[in-house]
Amino acid sequence: MTLNNSSETAILLMHCPDKQGILASVTEFINANNGNIVYLDQHVDYEQKIFYMRIAWELNHFLIPTNKIKDYFNTLFAERYQMSWQIVFSNIKPKMAIFVSKMSHCLFDLLARYSAGEWNVEIPLIISNHPDMAPVAEMFGIPYHIFPINKNNKAELEPQQIKLLEDTGVDFVVLARYMQVISNEFISHFPNKIINIHHSFLPAFVGAKPYHAAYERGVKIIGATSHYVTGELDAGPIISQDVAHISHKDDIGSLVLKGRDLEKIVLSRAVDKHLQHKVLVYNNRTVVFN
Amino acid sequence: MTLNNSSETAILLMHCPDKQGILASVTEFINANNGNIVYLDQHVDYEQKIFYMRIAWELNHFLIPTNKIKDYFNTLFAERYQMSWQIVFSNIKPKMAIFVSKMSHCLFDLLARYSAGEWNVEIPLIISNHPDMAPVAEMFGIPYHIFPINKNNKAELEPQQIKLLEDTGVDFVVLARYMQVISNEFISHFPNKIINIHHSFLPAFVGAKPYHAAYERGVKIIGATSHYVTGELDAGPIISQDVAHISHKDDIGSLVLKGRDLEKIVLSRAVDKHLQHKVLVYNNRTVVFN
Amino acid sequence: MTLNNSSETAILLMHCPDKQGILASVTEFINANNGNIVYLDQHVDYEQKIFYMRIAWELNHFLIPTNKIKDYFNTLFAERYQMSWQIVFSNIKPKMAIFVSKMSHCLFDLLARYSAGEWNVEIPLIISNHPDMAPVAEMFGIPYHIFPINKNNKAELEPQQIKLLEDTGVDFVVLARYMQVISNEFISHFPNKIINIHHSFLPAFVGAKPYHAAYERGVKIIGATSHYVTGELDAGPIISQDVAHISHKDDIGSLVLKGRDLEKIVLSRAVDKHLQHKVLVYNNRTVVFN
Amino acid sequence: MTLNNSSETAILLMHCPDKQGILASVTEFINANNGNIVYLDQHVDYEQKIFYMRIAWELNHFLIPTNKIKDYFNTLFAERYQMSWQIVFSNIKPKMAIFVSKMSHCLFDLLARYSAGEWNVEIPLIISNHPDMAPVAEMFGIPYHIFPINKNNKAELEPQQIKLLEDTGVDFVVLARYMQVISNEFISHFPNKIINIHHSFLPAFVGAKPYHAAYERGVKIIGATSHYVTGELDAGPIISQDVAHISHKDDIGSLVLKGRDLEKIVLSRAVDKHLQHKVLVYNNRTVVFN
Repeated sequence: MTLNNSSETAILLMHCPDKQGILASVTEFINANNGNIVYLDQHVDYEQKIFYMRIAWELNHFLIPTNKIKDYFNTLFAERYQMSWQIVFSNIKPKMAIFVSKMSHCLFDLLARYSAGEWNVEIPLIISNHPDMAPVAEMFGIPYHIFPINKNNKAELEPQQIKLLEDTGVDFVVLARYMQVISNEFISHFPNKIINIHHSFLPAFVGAKPYHAAYERGVKIIGATSHYVTGELDAGPIISQDVAHISHKDDIGSLVLKGRDLEKIVLSRAVDKHLQHKVLVYNNRTVVFN
Repeated sequence: MTLNNSSETAILLMHCPDKQGILASVTEFINANNGNIVYLDQHVDYEQKIFYMRIAWELNHFLIPTNKIKDYFNTLFAERYQMSWQIVFSNIKPKMAIFVSKMSHCLFDLLARYSAGEWNVEIPLIISNHPDMAPVAEMFGIPYHIFPINKNNKAELEPQQIKLLEDTGVDFVVLARYMQVISNEFISHFPNKIINIHHSFLPAFVGAKPYHAAYERGVKIIGATSHYVTGELDAGPIISQDVAHISHKDDIGSLVLKGRDLEKIVLSRAVDKHLQHKVLVYNNRTVVFN
Repeated sequence: MTLNNSSETAILLMHCPDKQGILASVTEFINANNGNIVYLDQHVDYEQKIFYMRIAWELNHFLIPTNKIKDYFNTLFAERYQMSWQIVFSNIKPKMAIFVSKMSHCLFDLLARYSAGEWNVEIPLIISNHPDMAPVAEMFGIPYHIFPINKNNKAELEPQQIKLLEDTGVDFVVLARYMQVISNEFISHFPNKIINIHHSFLPAFVGAKPYHAAYERGVKIIGATSHYVTGELDAGPIISQDVAHISHKDDIGSLVLKGRDLEKIVLSRAVDKHLQHKVLVYNNRTVVFN
Repeated sequence: MTLNNSSETAILLMHCPDKQGILASVTEFINANNGNIVYLDQHVDYEQKIFYMRIAWELNHFLIPTNKIKDYFNTLFAERYQMSWQIVFSNIKPKMAIFVSKMSHCLFDLLARYSAGEWNVEIPLIISNHPDMAPVAEMFGIPYHIFPINKNNKAELEPQQIKLLEDTGVDFVVLARYMQVISNEFISHFPNKIINIHHSFLPAFVGAKPYHAAYERGVKIIGATSHYVTGELDAGPIISQDVAHISHKDDIGSLVLKGRDLEKIVLSRAVDKHLQHKVLVYNNRTVVFN
């Protein structure tokens, strides 16, 4: 992780059993210590009795030293309210790995935003099971690692991928139309930190060749779904979805083309929300703050 | 069926194996006999080699007597090109039956359009398995028939429903959130003439309680689907679909409310297309002309 | 206003200059007095430094008597923080008047929801400048008052309308395709309490015949906009908008038909948000809570 | 222009005053000469009495030599029916110039499709009034020409741009967020061949800073519009539009970010339709075939 120079803020993302006074306590704590709150959103699931919150505040006049904030927060609130929580600092630039197979549209969309400085992120490497996208990686000056993975050698190669990711300090992984199933072992190293794009409106058309299935079924709308990867195929918590209207004039070829535009935008939206620490997962569903 | 007084047109709706010259032959035939074409749309499925067409032309100067048009068309084109076809006349007002259970939103939407004269249709009766919607039927002056149908008595009551529909001269049936499965026997009397609204984005969430299933899965978009009823539950040819974005702030109650607006609009769009004879079914998919 | 029997809640809707501690103070006050918060959403406009909030809490164990809540709130918070605020009680059923001219689609949509009990509202009267919709009003058993208003007699008839509304205790007015401009004098009696539906995607196509203008301009999307009425035509704060894709195949007639479905849904959404006290107006823009 | 090796087809794009028999005559001519029709769509504007058509047919067994097709067509049909028409051949790769200023999102989207071979096009050059996008051009190996154009030197520099385009054999121009007004003289060299993207839902928010204007007006939806450039600013025939829902939580910064995704997709859709010869212009409106 590397530092950047923008004005520093702290971001708290948390959920816990709903109780009176959490929001008041936390905001009062920040206020009392001269933290200027610049973002607050919260959500209560009144059925499950879960409280979700994201708060961001400026650190330049905050009275608690940055390296002690997590410790204080843990003692004063997190343990008391049984929170699942994280606090991140805006001057830390997270590291994102991209996995790709042969298609370029999602990869280009991610790298174009990266290159334009749209995101606070570093992309130290791209991993693929094919050589096809190496020229794109080279255009953007990003190391490209080929692991010719398949069902037979997955048990052997995945640990090498994991080691490479961990050695590089990768924080999360984006599957940009990566056409390999990730093992549970791999997932356990990056829980809720692997973002996939599936080229259908999930839960319709799970698995391979969803555009063929959509055409066969005669739907009038196609979709794309970004989600965190879990052990069950295409069943992880959904971060973002979008759709496009189609008609009888569309054949599979035009569905694939229209779908590409959905896929890249929906995937990038999910990456954007993840990077802004606006996604909370609970019970295989997400809270995605605006 | 009853007559209305608008300027009369004929509408041809057809599909057949694609061959050179069909469109040219048919349009030339209409032109040569002084028919003024006021609508023409066609579609070729180049993979399946199927030709689909809808043509409408004015009858006031057409040289072939209206009561002989079908006969001529059959001899000159339909047999030669192995067409599945229908010709309808705009001054014939089709009869539509509505089936409903306890919810009023789709029923009101259909009857409001009916009452406003938006559609060229007659609604001679409403059928329900519950008394709840009788007051709505009464508001619009439409006979309301209650068949307290359930799994046990379906074999006994459905023939009575079919007889009532056939005695009334009903052309097609609209299931406006009718919560009973229609038997194959019933469907065989109205093939591709029973329009259902399913409260999900099919093929996701087939069957009962789709909003509960959508909530459980954590989708970010809900949908509604209108389709012709076939023997397989929620698997008939899709006529129209639409969706609405939702968020973590939506609970099942708000999904149901947002879904209602989708359901009524999507169902009415399907009825509208059906009434305009713009829907063609082939291989469990539809061509829906604009 | 009349009472209903659902479990009673209080709803606070407010905005004020943003200051530290407002949210904490208010929620603590409710908690400390045994009010169970069932809804909280807030928004800070960090540019204008305005704080917006909606809180709802159950009253059954609340320690402050219902008839003193407003007084307490005013003393403890509203004056201190210079709030624009209202507190409403869920057992009060607001009264809504509908103004209509000759078209039925929005009127039916409103009355269908009313009749289905979708809204906590009473509709004591419908006002029109034409007799056309009297039969619809009669279907739903609602008094229908005709004021044959035009430019020349507006100064004379509007005061009679205002008197009728005030005598009936009407809280807000819905213009359901009412084709008359409301005077500033009328508006001053119902500030941010007159909801209009304009049949375009404002600010495009202000004024009369927007579908003709949209057709002429060759747009590929049409829209509808619900807004509060202000002194400037079609320029009031926007509550809700939606759009539909169109193509070269649409003529003005089909734009009008497609637009109707937009208009009725968009208007009803705005009425729904208004009825739930989820709309705040500031600087001619709205905050609309989910 | 260069040749490619895909199976060759001819594409006819035309409009003319509507008369009986045009479609029949043309399709019969193609059929009679062994042309296999692989695409046919047509549209009649019954109000303006204009007939529009696009037909594509395979050339491999077509009996008329390719270099005589235009001549035959002109004699047999175009003059007779007073057609505006073009016939293009799929093995001709058109040349497209991109104009850009400082923003990369549209440029990357175009070049990513180009690089992926999504389009049958050649991009021989990129022109800009700023040096900022030179590195992107270099990544894709495309010559980048800087003309530091402004109001004062436009009369001097534009002729140089036109000469460069004409010397390079450029067929059409795409303004990918190019922040300079094109003169009428320039436009006259490329009539209906300059595609612009405007970052609003036209005709709302013509001119500069539309996101600021949208924010100020408090709209709930933003949009983007691609259109052919004409002499009147932002008033040319619209090819494609799309929109995104926004809320009170969006500030101008987030509108700009959300808008970027609209802009690039809408612009690329327009380029795609133009490249497929599916856009016809008449009376400042477009017919855009599917």
